[in-house]
Amino acid sequence: MVAQVLPESHTDVLIIGAGPAGLMMATWLAKCGVKTRIVDKRGTKVFNGQADGLQCRTLEIFDSLGFAHRAWRESNHMLEICLWNPDENGVIRRSDRIPDTIPGISRFQQVVLHQGRIERYFLDMIAECGGNDVERGVLPTKLSIDESLADADDDDVYPITVTLRHLSEKDATPQQFATSANGAAVQDGLFRSNLSADDTTELLKASALDAKADAEEIVKAKYLLGADGAHSWTRNQLGFKLEGESTDYIWGVLDIVPITDFPDIRMRCAVHSATHGSVMVIPRENKLVRLYIQLTNTSKVGGEAGSKADRSNINPGVILESAQRILAPYTISYRILDWWTAYQIGQRVGTNFSAHERVFLAGDAVHTHSPKAGQGMNVSMQDAYNLGWKVASVVKGTSKRSILKTYQSERRQIAQDLIEFDHKFSRLFSGRPAKDVMDAEGISMEGFKQAFVKGNMFASGIAVDYGASTIVAKPGSTADQSNGTDVLESSKSHVMSTPSLATGLTVGQRIPSIKVLSQSDARPWHLQELLPSNGCWRVLFFTGDVTQNSPREKLAALGRALNNDTSFLRRFTPPNPGGRCDAVFELLAVHSAPRHSVTIFDFPEVFRQFTELDGYDYGKIYVDDVSYHEGFGDLYKNFGIAAEGCAVILRPDQYISFVGPLDDVAALDTFFSQFMREQFVSNGGALSHGLELEGAKASNGEVEDGDMVKHAGTPVAQTANVLVA
Amino acid sequence: MVAQVLPESHTDVLIIGAGPAGLMMATWLAKCGVKTRIVDKRGTKVFNGQADGLQCRTLEIFDSLGFAHRAWRESNHMLEICLWNPDENGVIRRSDRIPDTIPGISRFQQVVLHQGRIERYFLDMIAECGGNDVERGVLPTKLSIDESLADADDDDVYPITVTLRHLSEKDATPQQFATSANGAAVQDGLFRSNLSADDTTELLKASALDAKADAEEIVKAKYLLGADGAHSWTRNQLGFKLEGESTDYIWGVLDIVPITDFPDIRMRCAVHSATHGSVMVIPRENKLVRLYIQLTNTSKVGGEAGSKADRSNINPGVILESAQRILAPYTISYRILDWWTAYQIGQRVGTNFSAHERVFLAGDAVHTHSPKAGQGMNVSMQDAYNLGWKVASVVKGTSKRSILKTYQSERRQIAQDLIEFDHKFSRLFSGRPAKDVMDAEGISMEGFKQAFVKGNMFASGIAVDYGASTIVAKPGSTADQSNGTDVLESSKSHVMSTPSLATGLTVGQRIPSIKVLSQSDARPWHLQELLPSNGCWRVLFFTGDVTQNSPREKLAALGRALNNDTSFLRRFTPPNPGGRCDAVFELLAVHSAPRHSVTIFDFPEVFRQFTELDGYDYGKIYVDDVSYHEGFGDLYKNFGIAAEGCAVILRPDQYISFVGPLDDVAALDTFFSQFMREQFVSNGGALSHGLELEGAKASNGEVEDGDMVKHAGTPVAQTANVLVA
Repeated sequence: MVAQVLPESHTDVLIIGAGPAGLMMATWLAKCGVKTRIVDKRGTKVFNGQADGLQCRTLEIFDSLGFAHRAWRESNHMLEICLWNPDENGVIRRSDRIPDTIPGISRFQQVVLHQGRIERYFLDMIAECGGNDVERGVLPTKLSIDESLADADDDDVYPITVTLRHLSEKDATPQQFATSANGAAVQDGLFRSNLSADDTTELLKASALDAKADAEEIVKAKYLLGADGAHSWTRNQLGFKLEGESTDYIWGVLDIVPITDFPDIRMRCAVHSATHGSVMVIPRENKLVRLYIQLTNTSKVGGEAGSKADRSNINPGVILESAQRILAPYTISYRILDWWTAYQIGQRVGTNFSAHERVFLAGDAVHTHSPKAGQGMNVSMQDAYNLGWKVASVVKGTSKRSILKTYQSERRQIAQDLIEFDHKFSRLFSGRPAKDVMDAEGISMEGFKQAFVKGNMFASGIAVDYGASTIVAKPGSTADQSNGTDVLESSKSHVMSTPSLATGLTVGQRIPSIKVLSQSDARPWHLQELLPSNGCWRVLFFTGDVTQNSPREKLAALGRALNNDTSFLRRFTPPNPGGRCDAVFELLAVHSAPRHSVTIFDFPEVFRQFTELDGYDYGKIYVDDVSYHEGFGDLYKNFGIAAEGCAVILRPDQYISFVGPLDDVAALDTFFSQFMREQFVSNGGALSHGLELEGAKASNGEVEDGDMVKHAGTPVAQTANVLVA
Repeated sequence: MVAQVLPESHTDVLIIGAGPAGLMMATWLAKCGVKTRIVDKRGTKVFNGQADGLQCRTLEIFDSLGFAHRAWRESNHMLEICLWNPDENGVIRRSDRIPDTIPGISRFQQVVLHQGRIERYFLDMIAECGGNDVERGVLPTKLSIDESLADADDDDVYPITVTLRHLSEKDATPQQFATSANGAAVQDGLFRSNLSADDTTELLKASALDAKADAEEIVKAKYLLGADGAHSWTRNQLGFKLEGESTDYIWGVLDIVPITDFPDIRMRCAVHSATHGSVMVIPRENKLVRLYIQLTNTSKVGGEAGSKADRSNINPGVILESAQRILAPYTISYRILDWWTAYQIGQRVGTNFSAHERVFLAGDAVHTHSPKAGQGMNVSMQDAYNLGWKVASVVKGTSKRSILKTYQSERRQIAQDLIEFDHKFSRLFSGRPAKDVMDAEGISMEGFKQAFVKGNMFASGIAVDYGASTIVAKPGSTADQSNGTDVLESSKSHVMSTPSLATGLTVGQRIPSIKVLSQSDARPWHLQELLPSNGCWRVLFFTGDVTQNSPREKLAALGRALNNDTSFLRRFTPPNPGGRCDAVFELLAVHSAPRHSVTIFDFPEVFRQFTELDGYDYGKIYVDDVSYHEGFGDLYKNFGIAAEGCAVILRPDQYISFVGPLDDVAALDTFFSQFMREQFVSNGGALSHGLELEGAKASNGEVEDGDMVKHAGTPVAQTANVLVA
């Protein structure tokens, strides 16, 4: 054989795997305009089955990406959980009801929608942002990392080399088992269940035989994301492991249109039968209901604890019979079976989430667990949501590579929390209900309810609280949460928040959403609606009642300090003639004076920037006041804003980085100096900058020259990254 | 020349004109599955300019059609109206603020979005429903009505013959005037302003010269809608007139991105200057602001009152200068001009809205007025929204032709109200502000504000209150509101509402929307969300607290009566094997027992119909109870539902037809018997019907035969319309 020279190309980021985690990453990068390729070994996206629960935090994220409304409209909304347990005669009855989402924690509630639709939203948004399509039927075969380049703090190297093989359409179509149910063939999900082996080898082998479609190419990348599932090829290449354990519990899953007299079939239900196991009922869209059904009669291979279940014994009929035993005396059957699968409960976490902060792992590649809590897809997408903006800001030269360490420190902690939650929850769910208080081996149903209520906060995704790091300015030992990465560059530049200035906010958590009004047009907005995921850092200035002397003077001083050439706003914003002047930082003011008592002209021009084409920016000044139609957010009270006001730094993913004094611009400068790259050099003694805020004024029909904000000084090419010491 | 035989085809409905009124009609008919063609003489839909205001009632209607969320997201929301008037020194200042939408009247508020987007939503929905595309560049040239067929109460005749001519693309493109503004050519809207003549003759003449594209065809139709604008060809063919008057007031319109220091530029503003005329400010989407600017310096041809303005003097520069004089001392200019036009205020109403109830007119074809109140597009769409379901139900053979008389009686009244409103409003707006209370010729600014506040209720579209007719069972002289049509078939079959059973509802108005919870899954829904526009009549049964004896007994009796073979449900629903059993009537129950105290199995099966494929219907039973996340609608209190409950009949357009006793099914039968066609004949003594509600039960996995509801008896073909006397 003659050695073949493979075609070679470069990309900033390569994503392996186009499930929810990979698509989230691709969406972020498309929003930020970063050159990206995303490949998947399978020939099509999923059309039914798979994960289906969406947490309220996930919906908040979807909203920031611009498609929560699609999910909200199409999904089934779950409002209430009904707990069913045996009564004194061993007959199941509804013992409790609890809200499915804790009231007040989010403007969204948990909903259910199948993964195929969610992948569709991502694909549509990537296309809308001009990102690259998913390349399907493409399998990576070789990965190498040039370590000498990988660790350099250099944005312009390609340390990663991946060989990709393009499969034929036939090879890329996963083998699905044709199950006969009620006389009709039905798709099942066993091929992706953990009862099934990895099919990568099989796919590769098939493709090797098909010479025609078997084209290979080499891709050089700055960064790589392995979002390639529980059998992650990327993880295996890196030699990283999933650590954890399996249990003896086997569960079946049916997606059916139920025919039943069980009265709570459209509620989320946890049903513990006396002796036949448990069922979880998840009502879905299109009249479907998903049943998670404990299979107490299924034998395991070898019959030993922890061994694999014998999947040849599992089929829809067997699973339905289990459900019928558990739900008796109610009857249940179906004519329409949409999908089914089975799995053996286990919990595992990846040992490492990153190699050299060049190759990252996300989603099932670093955490696997039982599906019943509806967490898997959510946590996977949130991994990539945490990572995307960080990689984008490094690739674009606005942030230093050091912030990439926070991916593992923040997300491995979440994965560990998830596994712990799932471990406890699964065992409570799979256990036999206690007959009475003396029945020590049984599960106390009161304890189960308490665990459910407590688990709800975790399950919402709202409780995520990232540890201290360069991008989360809060006290606490970073070593405890660092998961092996040094997330504080050095102690000397470290700034600390003053939590007493906003007692309702928690540094490290996402900012809650409350309605505020736009000063310019009185329109109510949820605060989070003002924070779309576009890669911007935001500083919210809670200025207080600016009709009063002290706040007014502070506001004027703030305007001057932000306009200063040495402020973070000037130093870290790259020159971008003709583009947005808020490409790195967006400044928002939320005041508490009566709306009618001020106009936008009572605020410094930094909050109403002027361009000659568009006039003033009317979208940066908000007020905490009563709306005509949507009530009163009462933000100052709910956020516990101190009388003297405060400044709050929000990360591009809406998590709170810092709470500090309103007019302490020096603290903001220090915070951003820890990880941001300066964009300009001094030019004849004075610092140059990319924004000209003063001087441009509304004129009376006489504007003639210059379409845009003028850029003074001599901007240095962005890739040079000249640093001012 | 040899006489050419033109191709001939049939359609149920032909629509001439694909503006908002025509598209609304086409959408309704597509939703109802009625065979329809829609033609427009112009080659493309509009892309900018034109009408832009959307009332809250229009948004409610859009929601019922499935696309309000698109308009709500893309539009600019107007919350507040600021009134600016001269102070004692003649300098303008803000004198008042009022809410743009009266709080509480709707779940939507007035918004602004240009007509092109709205037409897009209609086109998308028509495609989604499988309706025909708009045929553009198609001009009607001949209309004839066979009067012997037109007046027959026969659903299967085609009394209308229209000749259509297909234009070339060039001919179908309207000539637009290339206006130079700031050195760039700008589209203007003068070609559709009332300062411009009808271009139909011109289009026809051009097409006559272009032999290639000049194909003709003949279309035979059961019904025709002329939604072809102020110069309506259809109206002219029928010999009907627009009656009314012009004024001397000339107004210019600019759609600009403003450069200004006027502080309320993102509010809706009414600005009266001391001596230079008035401006209305309408903030729009995409940073645009529309200014309606009074042109006090523009001379009219001949200089006589009521004569046409000399449009050669009007251009964007002249209009801007007027705005600058009015808004001084504030400055205003622009770099971006999106569109502009000018018009002369006049108010006219069509003498007739229908010929033989076969040809109908809607929109500008029957009412024209000034655009400032944002009414035109709304009232036009609502004309067609009123008509569409009526025509559909007649074409489909469920209703008699007599209901078509209510189109003119209902909509001509609205047009007259609109013209009266606009007449008053325009004069107040165009008049000079009074200098003081002694200035009798000037307009009192306090009076202007009062008119504005009062006008707001009218402008919302919520106040529409249709008069008594066969489909609005309320007292009052029908002659007063009949506009020349006999809308009560006969007095003997007339039923009357009992308003005291629901004191918060007004028969003849649209039903207000309040949140209720689905009994089966606790999800909150706005009541109107349960009433999508699909052609169904609905009966809402407010059953009270069904855990109490008396309501429970009434409910059981109601279930039996509805199931009776002689009930309206049986007699007027056509056989439809395999289709929806609620094709004509949808029955909804809203009870007031605590949600936790009942399940759907406490209700008669008519509210939870069973099919063997889908099991029970979980979507028909609702409860007035507290939700977890969206408060408490308190519907029974807000609707003033009497202790004994009530039944409410809603038209397919959500207007209230009838309020009566909960269990008086005979009254419901009588109501529907006035205008509905019976669908079945007696068969061996017993009436046959299309629904089998009893007998089908949830079975335990043993369902084997029959996919759908069984249809007993011998259905008669729908077109035969055999009537039982």
